[in-house]
Amino acid sequence: MKGIEKVKVVDKFWRSYMDVVRDEVIPYQWKALNDQLPDTEPSHAIENFRIAAGESRGEYYGMVFQDSDVAKWLEAVAFSLENDPNEELERTADEVIDLLGRAQQPDGYLNSYYTVKEPGNRWTNLRDNHEMYCAGHFMEAAVAYYKATGKRKFLTIMCRFADHIDEVFGDHEGQLKGYPGHPEIELALVKLYSVTEEKRYLQLSKYFIDQRGTDPNYFDLEAERRGDEKPHWFFDGDHRYHQGHLPVREQDKAVGHAVRAVYLYIAMTDIAEKMHDDSLREVCETLWDNVTNQQMYITAGIGSSEFGESFTFGYDLPNDVSYTETCASIGLVFWANRMLNLEVNSKYTDVMERALYNGTISGMDLDGKGFFYVNPLEVMPETSTRFEKRHVKPVRQKWFFCACCPPNLARMISSIGHYVYSQDEQSVFVHLYAGSETVVTVNGIPVSIQQKTDYPWDEKVNLKVSPESESTFTLALRIPGWCTNPELKINGEQIDLGSIVKKGYAYIDRLWKKGDEVSLTLPMPVIRIRANPKVRVNAGKVALQRGPIVYCLEEVDNGKHLGNISLPKSSKLQINKETQLGGIVTITGMALRVDEAEWGNELYSTDEPTKIFTDFKAIPYYAWCNREPGEMIVWIDED
Amino acid sequence: MKGIEKVKVVDKFWRSYMDVVRDEVIPYQWKALNDQLPDTEPSHAIENFRIAAGESRGEYYGMVFQDSDVAKWLEAVAFSLENDPNEELERTADEVIDLLGRAQQPDGYLNSYYTVKEPGNRWTNLRDNHEMYCAGHFMEAAVAYYKATGKRKFLTIMCRFADHIDEVFGDHEGQLKGYPGHPEIELALVKLYSVTEEKRYLQLSKYFIDQRGTDPNYFDLEAERRGDEKPHWFFDGDHRYHQGHLPVREQDKAVGHAVRAVYLYIAMTDIAEKMHDDSLREVCETLWDNVTNQQMYITAGIGSSEFGESFTFGYDLPNDVSYTETCASIGLVFWANRMLNLEVNSKYTDVMERALYNGTISGMDLDGKGFFYVNPLEVMPETSTRFEKRHVKPVRQKWFFCACCPPNLARMISSIGHYVYSQDEQSVFVHLYAGSETVVTVNGIPVSIQQKTDYPWDEKVNLKVSPESESTFTLALRIPGWCTNPELKINGEQIDLGSIVKKGYAYIDRLWKKGDEVSLTLPMPVIRIRANPKVRVNAGKVALQRGPIVYCLEEVDNGKHLGNISLPKSSKLQINKETQLGGIVTITGMALRVDEAEWGNELYSTDEPTKIFTDFKAIPYYAWCNREPGEMIVWIDED
Repeated sequence: MKGIEKVKVVDKFWRSYMDVVRDEVIPYQWKALNDQLPDTEPSHAIENFRIAAGESRGEYYGMVFQDSDVAKWLEAVAFSLENDPNEELERTADEVIDLLGRAQQPDGYLNSYYTVKEPGNRWTNLRDNHEMYCAGHFMEAAVAYYKATGKRKFLTIMCRFADHIDEVFGDHEGQLKGYPGHPEIELALVKLYSVTEEKRYLQLSKYFIDQRGTDPNYFDLEAERRGDEKPHWFFDGDHRYHQGHLPVREQDKAVGHAVRAVYLYIAMTDIAEKMHDDSLREVCETLWDNVTNQQMYITAGIGSSEFGESFTFGYDLPNDVSYTETCASIGLVFWANRMLNLEVNSKYTDVMERALYNGTISGMDLDGKGFFYVNPLEVMPETSTRFEKRHVKPVRQKWFFCACCPPNLARMISSIGHYVYSQDEQSVFVHLYAGSETVVTVNGIPVSIQQKTDYPWDEKVNLKVSPESESTFTLALRIPGWCTNPELKINGEQIDLGSIVKKGYAYIDRLWKKGDEVSLTLPMPVIRIRANPKVRVNAGKVALQRGPIVYCLEEVDNGKHLGNISLPKSSKLQINKETQLGGIVTITGMALRVDEAEWGNELYSTDEPTKIFTDFKAIPYYAWCNREPGEMIVWIDED
Repeated sequence: MKGIEKVKVVDKFWRSYMDVVRDEVIPYQWKALNDQLPDTEPSHAIENFRIAAGESRGEYYGMVFQDSDVAKWLEAVAFSLENDPNEELERTADEVIDLLGRAQQPDGYLNSYYTVKEPGNRWTNLRDNHEMYCAGHFMEAAVAYYKATGKRKFLTIMCRFADHIDEVFGDHEGQLKGYPGHPEIELALVKLYSVTEEKRYLQLSKYFIDQRGTDPNYFDLEAERRGDEKPHWFFDGDHRYHQGHLPVREQDKAVGHAVRAVYLYIAMTDIAEKMHDDSLREVCETLWDNVTNQQMYITAGIGSSEFGESFTFGYDLPNDVSYTETCASIGLVFWANRMLNLEVNSKYTDVMERALYNGTISGMDLDGKGFFYVNPLEVMPETSTRFEKRHVKPVRQKWFFCACCPPNLARMISSIGHYVYSQDEQSVFVHLYAGSETVVTVNGIPVSIQQKTDYPWDEKVNLKVSPESESTFTLALRIPGWCTNPELKINGEQIDLGSIVKKGYAYIDRLWKKGDEVSLTLPMPVIRIRANPKVRVNAGKVALQRGPIVYCLEEVDNGKHLGNISLPKSSKLQINKETQLGGIVTITGMALRVDEAEWGNELYSTDEPTKIFTDFKAIPYYAWCNREPGEMIVWIDED
């Protein structure tokens, strides 16, 4: 299986996000990296590299992983250039890459924190200090930049660093047997392998994966060498936080820091695929099942605890204190994409789609100027004054000192085209429905595929499939899990889906001719979703979904005290195409609402509260907090 | 209005608690104070005084308010001796009092922390260091001990200390204009006044009250003098935590640390009454209204936030992360009792009763061996692994390093007799229904009152009223707010309550003769209570109450996942007198329960969960966690 990355995205939905990333986010981040934002804490990220290169004087400033902000920016730029060539932007990126080259040490090492601040202490705190995390992000960016521009310089810099790391780590005498506290380099090394075909990178990735959690625990050994107090209070004595509590092949539940976890699982999935490692594949499948069937919000948010930004335990999905970091959902998109390489199964794509249209993009407002790190499913602004809800922001923030989420969103959105299709020798797979154009070579023959749709608002998807010459191959179309009665026509002729759908994909195996038209209809009634009864907080509640979009109620549409709105089972729900919020479909209907005025001031009473009929309006969850700030809920009481 | 303290409690319900306090809690606490508990962190409280008295060598150990544990123990002992004379216990208490006398400094100062550890730094950190808090508890204990035993030694010690404090604090030159970070001495000085009639104590109490929150803030001034960093991160810059953000007469919402708040309000109420201070009285009424109509759980738990052990804002009453410290509810009992001195109104007594039978005694198990500091209304043991719920213990603890709640419960329970009656010249008021015997002098004639009842389980209350000679006076009986159709008979003759009930009390004004029998019937159907619709978390939920007792469901009776149980509106509820748990009335009936097995493993689905009929059993909330640990809920979904 291989991805198809040369995809021109013309989709209305994603194109508007890509434009915002290109026009707002990338330029804004560039200013941030260069400390040009007046009311924002300085980033110092570019300046750190200048100091490391000996071209500026001063102190290192910022988080220990400040470098990674530069890396993520470069990767987002690379993806953006793929769709939208821009000479000036490319020149700026080239200059940053040149600076990285000058900051790189003679042995290949590249990290501004250690180079400037603790030159003698490289690789002494893998647990906390993110050297390999930053390296990984630069490797990813280098691969993306090479693919987008064909320029090798950045790739060469990062290969030199990878070679250096490969010398430092390993089982031979004099090598360190460690692995990073924050997984990332593992997946990046696989990417580096994919463009260089250098097997050492694959083996080093596998080494880091298999070293993790082995006994004695490396993080304890290095802490002892540093003379640290032991155990570290935060890590609960068992290194769950960074998935170092057990060898990965013995892990069967997602635990600890959610972003670390999914980045690790991505690499494990890559290695399982590329190295045909069946036992690792089983672990990935088990962990996928645990995450998506026990620890995932309906928005595809993951990591329900603010403390440790972490997974907790099965069915523990509180709506109002959830952490559900934007980056964790982005990681879930990437992981789902990798799981599809192991097996084409819509259970992976459905989660990928759920994350893409809900829990990831909820992290950014529609004009790319405000961000959420945390994506709760219920916000009552006043309760954010409670200490344990202080992370639940009722208003989007301009930028974060720990600025991981905005650039992560930028790279995901800019590369959305990569997730639409994939292929093997005989088949082309359509995973996502998004207006796009690509040319794929199947069976040696180039095939142009043009996809037209107004997804996720409209149920029609049209694909024009044009092989250069007649050719027999399989086109496999995903049938989304939310769709119960899809219809398929080829050149106007109805196709019986019953016999051709396997694991959520409709396999159309035929002789294709230029201009063949595939029409897929995916009816999108509003559906009411209920949660597993083990999810305590959602007992008696429903969430509304239409197509892949999860809905929410906002105070601006529905008034205060959204918890007093309930939806009768019999209530008919209407959909309305609206121009507001960038063009969305809203859901309206009759609901019930407790008559607060009639209740009066008593705190407790034997009276039954009176309920009165009320109109309600639901908007897509991802679009919340783009108007007046206020309350928001996803799960609504059902009456 | 004055309290009637010489009351012999023969009540089955309270007598069993008093026995437990006498036989278990007081001896256990004595061992704790003397470091004689093997698996428990040492208290060192007695030893600290020995060191302060120069009779032992060593370092001070414990919290800065460790002294107060000794004070609370002495007060509990005093109350216990009132009902249960015990020579050995009294001798032990006398020895502790002698030790206090020897630890007292020549100028009257008494505090083992400062005497041993920071002798030069007295009164330099009123905000944090609890000198006056400890002094207040010793004053309360001294008053109680004097009343119980007639011995003046302890009282004399504490008057000397009070005189010293009165010299140190005040508006005259050379005096400190401060007030304590933790209110307590204010109410204690009023008690000291009540037995000594020394007006300076009353004036000093009023001084502390009126200094509080004035500008410039004393806590800031003393912090500056100490050279502290400023502002202290914890106090949010505005001293809400210790109610020092505004002059008390400008406060209209309960904020900050809940125990500090109610202890302050108690003293304010006392001063309003004793000094006929009407503006202070209005503030007390406003704050009472805020606490009980916006910030009180149905169990009379108060202080919903663990952070700062504090009040938050109106209607913010989460069930699962609530703090609701035992001591705060105990403070609410004391405050309600003081408010009754301002006005006989059952709105105060109803809250006092709610706290007594629910949110206070829930803090101790039935055999007095395990305690809760925190009294949540919903516990799912697994969720206590979430960081923000770590204070919500699913199992009672043996003792706490910060051991405020167990001794506070001990003194409240031992003095329960004080809350049953009060009187003025013409009237005797019956506030609580509890088997008891007392003799009251009204209109100059001693009247014996014998109360017989199996309250709170049984609806009958009988009072035998026997004046030594025929006498006209008023007997005022409280009609509890939960009771909608009370019946009253005097000597078998039905009395029309309609015309004689004022503010929740039935005023019987008549010529009383020896052996007059008053029979009150307070029908106790099970009632379903709903919360104000502004309480977000209780939307669609009911709590069950019978008489003054709030009920809960426990896992041991109802299985796991209590959130999946719902109570149909039509469901008939039965009551059952049972011998378990010390003899209680349980509530049983038919409920609905989501069929989890039928649902299967899907995390989300459009299926409606199937509900099946199930028996359920509710037990009194106070008695939860006396059997197997497990889930518990008070608020139940209504179907």
